[in-house]
Amino acid sequence: MAIKFSAQTELAPGADVNLDSVRHPQYGRYLEEYVPGQLFVHPRGFSFTQSNIDSFSRTYMQCNPLYLDLEYAKAHGFNQMPASPQMVFNVVLSLGVQNDSEKVIANLGYYNAQFLNPVYSGDTVRAMTMVVDRKERGADKPGIVTIRTLGLNQRDEVVLQYERKLMVAYRGERLPTVPVAEGQVPAFPWQEDASVNLPEALPTALRHATKSVTGWNTYAEDFSPGDIIVHNNGRTISDEHFALTYQVGNTHPLHYDKVFSQSLSGPMSGNPIVYGGLVYAWLEGLASRDLSENAVWELGFTEGYHTQPAFAGDTVFALTRILAVEDAPAELQDHASVVTLQFIGVKNITSAAALEKHGADLFIKENDKKALGKDKITDKIFEIERRLVIKKRG
Amino acid sequence: MAIKFSAQTELAPGADVNLDSVRHPQYGRYLEEYVPGQLFVHPRGFSFTQSNIDSFSRTYMQCNPLYLDLEYAKAHGFNQMPASPQMVFNVVLSLGVQNDSEKVIANLGYYNAQFLNPVYSGDTVRAMTMVVDRKERGADKPGIVTIRTLGLNQRDEVVLQYERKLMVAYRGERLPTVPVAEGQVPAFPWQEDASVNLPEALPTALRHATKSVTGWNTYAEDFSPGDIIVHNNGRTISDEHFALTYQVGNTHPLHYDKVFSQSLSGPMSGNPIVYGGLVYAWLEGLASRDLSENAVWELGFTEGYHTQPAFAGDTVFALTRILAVEDAPAELQDHASVVTLQFIGVKNITSAAALEKHGADLFIKENDKKALGKDKITDKIFEIERRLVIKKRG
Amino acid sequence: MAIKFSAQTELAPGADVNLDSVRHPQYGRYLEEYVPGQLFVHPRGFSFTQSNIDSFSRTYMQCNPLYLDLEYAKAHGFNQMPASPQMVFNVVLSLGVQNDSEKVIANLGYYNAQFLNPVYSGDTVRAMTMVVDRKERGADKPGIVTIRTLGLNQRDEVVLQYERKLMVAYRGERLPTVPVAEGQVPAFPWQEDASVNLPEALPTALRHATKSVTGWNTYAEDFSPGDIIVHNNGRTISDEHFALTYQVGNTHPLHYDKVFSQSLSGPMSGNPIVYGGLVYAWLEGLASRDLSENAVWELGFTEGYHTQPAFAGDTVFALTRILAVEDAPAELQDHASVVTLQFIGVKNITSAAALEKHGADLFIKENDKKALGKDKITDKIFEIERRLVIKKRG
Repeated sequence: MAIKFSAQTELAPGADVNLDSVRHPQYGRYLEEYVPGQLFVHPRGFSFTQSNIDSFSRTYMQCNPLYLDLEYAKAHGFNQMPASPQMVFNVVLSLGVQNDSEKVIANLGYYNAQFLNPVYSGDTVRAMTMVVDRKERGADKPGIVTIRTLGLNQRDEVVLQYERKLMVAYRGERLPTVPVAEGQVPAFPWQEDASVNLPEALPTALRHATKSVTGWNTYAEDFSPGDIIVHNNGRTISDEHFALTYQVGNTHPLHYDKVFSQSLSGPMSGNPIVYGGLVYAWLEGLASRDLSENAVWELGFTEGYHTQPAFAGDTVFALTRILAVEDAPAELQDHASVVTLQFIGVKNITSAAALEKHGADLFIKENDKKALGKDKITDKIFEIERRLVIKKRG
Repeated sequence: MAIKFSAQTELAPGADVNLDSVRHPQYGRYLEEYVPGQLFVHPRGFSFTQSNIDSFSRTYMQCNPLYLDLEYAKAHGFNQMPASPQMVFNVVLSLGVQNDSEKVIANLGYYNAQFLNPVYSGDTVRAMTMVVDRKERGADKPGIVTIRTLGLNQRDEVVLQYERKLMVAYRGERLPTVPVAEGQVPAFPWQEDASVNLPEALPTALRHATKSVTGWNTYAEDFSPGDIIVHNNGRTISDEHFALTYQVGNTHPLHYDKVFSQSLSGPMSGNPIVYGGLVYAWLEGLASRDLSENAVWELGFTEGYHTQPAFAGDTVFALTRILAVEDAPAELQDHASVVTLQFIGVKNITSAAALEKHGADLFIKENDKKALGKDKITDKIFEIERRLVIKKRG
Repeated sequence: MAIKFSAQTELAPGADVNLDSVRHPQYGRYLEEYVPGQLFVHPRGFSFTQSNIDSFSRTYMQCNPLYLDLEYAKAHGFNQMPASPQMVFNVVLSLGVQNDSEKVIANLGYYNAQFLNPVYSGDTVRAMTMVVDRKERGADKPGIVTIRTLGLNQRDEVVLQYERKLMVAYRGERLPTVPVAEGQVPAFPWQEDASVNLPEALPTALRHATKSVTGWNTYAEDFSPGDIIVHNNGRTISDEHFALTYQVGNTHPLHYDKVFSQSLSGPMSGNPIVYGGLVYAWLEGLASRDLSENAVWELGFTEGYHTQPAFAGDTVFALTRILAVEDAPAELQDHASVVTLQFIGVKNITSAAALEKHGADLFIKENDKKALGKDKITDKIFEIERRLVIKKRG
């Protein structure tokens, strides 16, 4: 359809400037703006392609070929190359930042994350958040907000759900935030007792899976409760993280705007801090060839805490502690087990040196330290519990 | 077709070095090498994919889902995810650098840019330039060259046309530049009175467009002439810009070769400066969620000037002043308006602080300052007028 | 297939930490672990897409439109955009690092590399290595291992084969490395007298190839034995190389883990060094518009040496010396020639200045300098011989 528009001519020099009509749009939300039961449909979506799936895997040093090698993915019953659950988590959380957390003081934790459907090349994911709880703690203190977020694909299937707790201040005298879109409120299909949709062909595929392109040390039989795995290599994070923040859709200026970061006081001031999702992604990647190269699904995670920020120039390292190795449900139990593990990140010290220095204390949650009369470990940047479905060697 | 080549054997140690047969290929063009009426068919082309479209959008912090979300694009009548006009501009200009501007002293301005056809994933764009005018200003002074550049898709449809003015020195004693390819001169289909080709399905789509995934504050009704919008977030540019320069095809060493930059004198010397197209792209992205999230087309821009260079480490911010809000042509007028705006970039100062500091002077073109007896604003890095087709909330 | 897993509950606080069950997985291989005749099937594979092909080309400043422009590639008889041989080399070598070289002291050289089949968007490449020779030089000295590596596509066609020599120490008291996967040993289809598979349509395509989008100075007729070409532009490498290392699949921490780099002594200590394959790729790209813009195939290379490391902040430059220009085999000889050339990289000095400073000595292999009583050139970072099939202008 050819449409004729009038020609553009220069207008600015002839248009008087009116300084009374200035606006400063603000995003995110202050404490009084979170109402339990309220629903936010998050702006934008994220379209997955084999290329951005592969690029995410490579940026964060993923070693599981499921997310790198199309032929391997197809041989495991997947139709296309699936996005790593880590990528799906980063994207869904980031899509929600503009509504959920662009004004928060701190992300307190991730809870009860569950990956319920694979996301493939060709899929577009959007996100919604419901406010679950708001705890006020006095007029001059930040409150605690609990939210639930869903990622949905273009068929409105839930691909991921999780909870977060946020520390948020009252707005007070600050500029108001942009209103949410009006209109009909959609359903919020949170799954209370969720099943996971895996490819029909997966059990058969596992029976015949090639063993040559994954490590011989990462089958289910190689893990026992109590095992501690020291992941040898670190990753030095560079200024690259400014750009990577919005590659996953995160809009928070704390991660890419030095002028903003320098205007803050406290531990977040100075240089832009690395978005926590990216830190987790690097840690997961660094651990992957020792841990998850033979995983066929990441069920989810809980009790995730970023206990210290990371900055450009920091080198991050990971450690794993195996907590449980259990039979998979009947559909998969001949070929896979469910491995639950504690996953720790440290920075600017190798995992081996951190374990030597801190011993068993490294595996105590930082939030529990005070009650136990122990000091916090400032080398530690991250802690979480993860559950993986891992192939048996057979 | 299996072809047998002779085996490779090492040759260098037996081949005497002849220092009389050295050549130093040079690209770009000196003043005497621009001849009005001359046509340059630019080397290479650029193939668009959903991935590089998406990657460009995310690198430059685009918030309009048209360029991020395949389902949104399809719901607006586009067959594939279109490239953002900003990406098309960056690519077409960059394809021309090797012929047009690799030897210029300065890019003086962009004029009369018009986006005439969407560029989709799957399209390949090539570029051509015609020399329109050459102004000589004496033998020891650089001259001013005016060029017109076209971007064409693989069906030879014009996707973009614009004019640039360049400041260029005479070659004098310097090394000659590489000759242009000989052969038949193709047509140069510059559109004097252009129409814009938009998807047939766009008007119907606009009638039914979902309102949930774009901001409630960026519909046509939200803009009135005189409005000033202070875009809150900045973007700190890192050394990433070295690589981003050739990601869009720009071959100028000023942007990625520190040895070259350090060999210069004047304001361009020192570290590589950020290619102006990238600066514009970041500014556009930073403004997008306050301004163009509900745009369905960028008609074009004019009077674009990079008034100061940007370097790695600089943080850039944007401001918008609305100049006109007009009815769209009949085909779209029920559903969209045409918004003309002045768009300003500053660096290392927030937009809010820059407006506080400079007031209305921020919106006066730097080239007009002298005649008005005003000082130039060195915080300002960019100024341009843009025209957008923006959806009505209805 | 919907599978019900039990709900995740937090386990770590109730699980005692056992410090007796710690493991430190190590990859790579020590001297005694290389056994001539032994075969390593390398972990993972690499799936090529138009996007990662294009992205590699642009990152390393490729100017040959064959690897940038889908329409150009199709007009030359290729079905899809082929990956540049440089990309295929980087990927295949990187896939092997985890087995072949993650513990080596130095990569001594590349030999006899041959690109035997195009790799297209849609292809997945895996790699295998055979140990060819192990030279021991006494119990307290590192030995020399010679390996052969193959890259195979999903139809098990060899796309690339080459040899490397590695300097490797004995393991001694160090931690053992992870065992290789057990099971049936596949064939190792090294091609002793290889043919190159090029598109059937290539000769016809060359007869009609458009001349407008490639340089007029880079046809076969433009090269004569003895020509020295000084490539003008350099590329400043930034910290970007940390991420680019694993973009091609290389797992060696020397390239991205500052804590590891700082734990070393000698020339590799300090900041992470740039993976040599990336250095070669940048050099090739910088030279491409003077040299290979009209190449239709890279046959291979030999005698490749990284004579000095490069670090973030270094600016690299390239020079070419033409060694031979020969008829192509009958299938192509009307339209193309085979050009053999010596290819040199320098850093932090322009190619022109390096040639001025070092003259003919720049083209003497650094390993031959001692025998000739000459000093090594520390400005030089790379040397290799390449063979290209280049179109005739006709």
